[in-house]
Amino acid sequence: MGTKPLLTGVLPALTTPFDSDGAVAPARMRENISSFNRIGLSGYLAVGSTGESYLLSRAEFEVVLSTVRDAAAPGRILIAGTGTETTAETISRTEFAAKLGYDYALVGPPTFFKPAMTSDVLVAHYTRVADAARIPILLYSVPQYTGVPIEVDVAARMSQHPNVAGMKDSSGNVDRIGGILAAVPESFRLLTGSSTTISSTMVMGGKGSILALADFLPELCVALDEAITAGDVHKALELQRRLIPPTRRIVGAMGVAGVKYAMDKRGYYGGPVREPLQPLSAEQKKEADSLLATLLPSAVSA
Amino acid sequence: MGTKPLLTGVLPALTTPFDSDGAVAPARMRENISSFNRIGLSGYLAVGSTGESYLLSRAEFEVVLSTVRDAAAPGRILIAGTGTETTAETISRTEFAAKLGYDYALVGPPTFFKPAMTSDVLVAHYTRVADAARIPILLYSVPQYTGVPIEVDVAARMSQHPNVAGMKDSSGNVDRIGGILAAVPESFRLLTGSSTTISSTMVMGGKGSILALADFLPELCVALDEAITAGDVHKALELQRRLIPPTRRIVGAMGVAGVKYAMDKRGYYGGPVREPLQPLSAEQKKEADSLLATLLPSAVSA
Amino acid sequence: MGTKPLLTGVLPALTTPFDSDGAVAPARMRENISSFNRIGLSGYLAVGSTGESYLLSRAEFEVVLSTVRDAAAPGRILIAGTGTETTAETISRTEFAAKLGYDYALVGPPTFFKPAMTSDVLVAHYTRVADAARIPILLYSVPQYTGVPIEVDVAARMSQHPNVAGMKDSSGNVDRIGGILAAVPESFRLLTGSSTTISSTMVMGGKGSILALADFLPELCVALDEAITAGDVHKALELQRRLIPPTRRIVGAMGVAGVKYAMDKRGYYGGPVREPLQPLSAEQKKEADSLLATLLPSAVSA
Amino acid sequence: MGTKPLLTGVLPALTTPFDSDGAVAPARMRENISSFNRIGLSGYLAVGSTGESYLLSRAEFEVVLSTVRDAAAPGRILIAGTGTETTAETISRTEFAAKLGYDYALVGPPTFFKPAMTSDVLVAHYTRVADAARIPILLYSVPQYTGVPIEVDVAARMSQHPNVAGMKDSSGNVDRIGGILAAVPESFRLLTGSSTTISSTMVMGGKGSILALADFLPELCVALDEAITAGDVHKALELQRRLIPPTRRIVGAMGVAGVKYAMDKRGYYGGPVREPLQPLSAEQKKEADSLLATLLPSAVSA
Repeated sequence: MGTKPLLTGVLPALTTPFDSDGAVAPARMRENISSFNRIGLSGYLAVGSTGESYLLSRAEFEVVLSTVRDAAAPGRILIAGTGTETTAETISRTEFAAKLGYDYALVGPPTFFKPAMTSDVLVAHYTRVADAARIPILLYSVPQYTGVPIEVDVAARMSQHPNVAGMKDSSGNVDRIGGILAAVPESFRLLTGSSTTISSTMVMGGKGSILALADFLPELCVALDEAITAGDVHKALELQRRLIPPTRRIVGAMGVAGVKYAMDKRGYYGGPVREPLQPLSAEQKKEADSLLATLLPSAVSA
Repeated sequence: MGTKPLLTGVLPALTTPFDSDGAVAPARMRENISSFNRIGLSGYLAVGSTGESYLLSRAEFEVVLSTVRDAAAPGRILIAGTGTETTAETISRTEFAAKLGYDYALVGPPTFFKPAMTSDVLVAHYTRVADAARIPILLYSVPQYTGVPIEVDVAARMSQHPNVAGMKDSSGNVDRIGGILAAVPESFRLLTGSSTTISSTMVMGGKGSILALADFLPELCVALDEAITAGDVHKALELQRRLIPPTRRIVGAMGVAGVKYAMDKRGYYGGPVREPLQPLSAEQKKEADSLLATLLPSAVSA
Repeated sequence: MGTKPLLTGVLPALTTPFDSDGAVAPARMRENISSFNRIGLSGYLAVGSTGESYLLSRAEFEVVLSTVRDAAAPGRILIAGTGTETTAETISRTEFAAKLGYDYALVGPPTFFKPAMTSDVLVAHYTRVADAARIPILLYSVPQYTGVPIEVDVAARMSQHPNVAGMKDSSGNVDRIGGILAAVPESFRLLTGSSTTISSTMVMGGKGSILALADFLPELCVALDEAITAGDVHKALELQRRLIPPTRRIVGAMGVAGVKYAMDKRGYYGGPVREPLQPLSAEQKKEADSLLATLLPSAVSA
Repeated sequence: MGTKPLLTGVLPALTTPFDSDGAVAPARMRENISSFNRIGLSGYLAVGSTGESYLLSRAEFEVVLSTVRDAAAPGRILIAGTGTETTAETISRTEFAAKLGYDYALVGPPTFFKPAMTSDVLVAHYTRVADAARIPILLYSVPQYTGVPIEVDVAARMSQHPNVAGMKDSSGNVDRIGGILAAVPESFRLLTGSSTTISSTMVMGGKGSILALADFLPELCVALDEAITAGDVHKALELQRRLIPPTRRIVGAMGVAGVKYAMDKRGYYGGPVREPLQPLSAEQKKEADSLLATLLPSAVSA
């Protein structure tokens, strides 16, 4: 399968831009990535939760993957979100990503039949996907959306599979992350998807982050990552604290609509969300404006 | 929109039969429905949760709807499960069902972005779907799978929409169902999807049931419904109690795999489930056999 | 242990009256019970959750038990809430109740060490209490307060103990109640503590109810119980529906403060709650007034 | 109120020793503290959750507080757990602690009437306690036991009270802790009570820890605290990882019985737990032995 670029640094969990008719807008996506290419981001995640993966058709999934692959600067890590409700479709999407040259597939669990998603069933599913995949896969835990957390035992068992490279954990549950990191080999790379717990995860052994926050505050995310990597605990603490309010409000409470709004404000293309998601209310916009205003001077100087 | 058959009685939540290669098997589905047509069931639900709706493609959804429509005896109520993750696709599937001649569309909520599915967002979504639909819609609450319950306020608000005919509630949460029934007009028809709470829901004002249990024990489900309707509280109590253990174990704990296994045992076509779902273990089969053995003599005589 | 009066009918879960200094007010309690004695209630529960059991000292527990025993009309069933955080204190309180002549002890589970309250630990605890008690005990499940539901297996196992007479279930979880009723012998008497699910529980095999709602709407609670017992499903449905809004709002959302306020409005003594509980806000009082005004004409005529 | 010692370092959340008859054993407690005095612990918490606070009488609370006060070496920070179900008793216990010379009172929220414990009610309760207290108080969040987390808004509002010095957070929810730390002034001192998240909390701005783990592995807890304070991220990571398995299994899964068993194994007095808590099973003892055996060589050399 060739050598893959080491999972490290900050990757934005890219949004999927839609035009005013609600169609995927590849040109807008290329513009965003062109801007991102000039910042110290280590790569891109296409079609993750923030990319409204569950609201896209298979054809749209393919368009987005091609667009990101073509627009990314050389050397950037390319990750494709390929998890779906069936094992077969997940394998098929992972194969598509591999053909396009993606480095990793990020595989969220099936979400609908929650009570049936026992550890044994998840391990069977992930084993089938990892066996079939021509690129290494990453487990993906985002229980606030899926209702199906990846627990310590599943991560530990899957970490023994030669084609499982690591995991993205967006739960923000550092206690569980600690349990996972204590149960997997050193080579298993855990990335956080929660911007409020970047420094706390990395101090436990996390290796990097894949963040919605990096769609509109990429410089600050990179600065935090660099501070931690450099062992500058004081600067990391200061940056992490500064990032908590926008994360909790714009990414957490407002969701993808908040992220896209903030991207528009920061000069990227955010654009509309897809229904059933709704645009921000006037009050939410005001709150987002205020949070960004507090951060922008810092963003410039960081 | 024409007069629709009154929502009443027992409707099985049909499973979707797959052949040994995992493909949808319309012939098997026709055989099952042919058998069901000889029992006093009031209609059919195609592509509900038990129909593994989330594991089917759009093309498979269409095949199943056509098959059920063609196989159902005249006069049966036809309900199509059309809820998906986007408002647009839900509208499109509802239109397809209407064109085929379905009487109602059963619309589960979008499930992925759980924190965003506030009452206002759900009302906006359901209003768009109900506005667009040429057949009346039913709200669908099955939070054990979706993580998104339909709360009292959403049901109350949507019950004012002229194209919302009622609701299927599979939560088994009779307290919330009571709250809903106290907040909607008499014309709003609530059906239960929980076999353990048929009699308790109907005594609160429920009008019928849509049941996975009716895929393998239809006679007993009908007998219970008739006992309640006839006001035979004693017989209803006896039947309801008898149905609780198989419901809790075969439908609840074992899920769709349990339902399909029990169908095979009762002479219908159950067949395999689709991955990531897994077949029953030997131990589970033994437990299901034992539960059915206890019920079968009664089933015959009921 | 002598023959105990059969658990049946409606029992109010008595509030504990406090005077304006916050002290227990036995004279007020006697007045309330004197009024209740003239209504068709089958007995009284002293020091349950609604009696602010967790906010009372042992000395206050004893005063309330004596007061209720002395004020209750002959023939009324007397139940004492004796559950505490330790096995030893629970046994001691149960012995106190037995000495005073109480018929039953209602025993809520220890609540603090939730993760440790496994089925085996609960069975060990309840077995010790039931072994030691000179009066039969009732299990008590009110997970909205305790965080420790009594699950089917614990109820089933304890129902085999000769000194466990039944259970009060205030969870409103009719699905679980059905599972319990299907797993215990006919002699095990389940009473509901949830006023929204009286009829739905009784149609499943429940035998009566112990209700906070009966502190301020006793006549309607009795009328509902009689309608169900008489098999008048239509009247039961009408009454049950009428009781749902005040239960959900005054008992559920406003809690003990709501119950006491409504008692004051209905001519009983409600009085203040104990801190940390807070009195109703002006807005809550208005809502309670409005709900009671809707019901009062009916209350008079019921 | 005099100057209080700065909240910093590692404090064990002391267990309450019982003799074979189940009575509080002050002599055993003195022996434990005498041993602890020789290790670099910064102080002691008496009658916290690990001290089985909810299973002790008021008289036992007083005995334990006196014992700890007398046995603690000079200069150690003394914290008393004084939270109870009522505002009045909490104030009374806090006053008792102040009179004995305790430095801080750790105040868990009332736990029984969970739905009533809104932010406003908690702020009213804590304000009354803080107003009345002659020593500064610390908020205490341990939702796995209480079911009542201290949310960001309550911490933020109470951090403005001059007599609230900080908070112990045992939830392990680093995401919420980050939100709290971003919302309180620098002077508000947050200590973690979760041994799996010591380093991750401190890198977010936590100031120290109060740990059940420090009852049987105090040297390792102190070594971790020192590594973090010294900025030795590598050593902290190594120690933190080593502490996760015993914390998850012995403290988390086995609870107070596990902590006391491990104390006995490490040469302290653990002794029995109080019913309803149960001693470890043979299998649990074996697992605890195995976890301790892995750690003991390190413990010696740490």
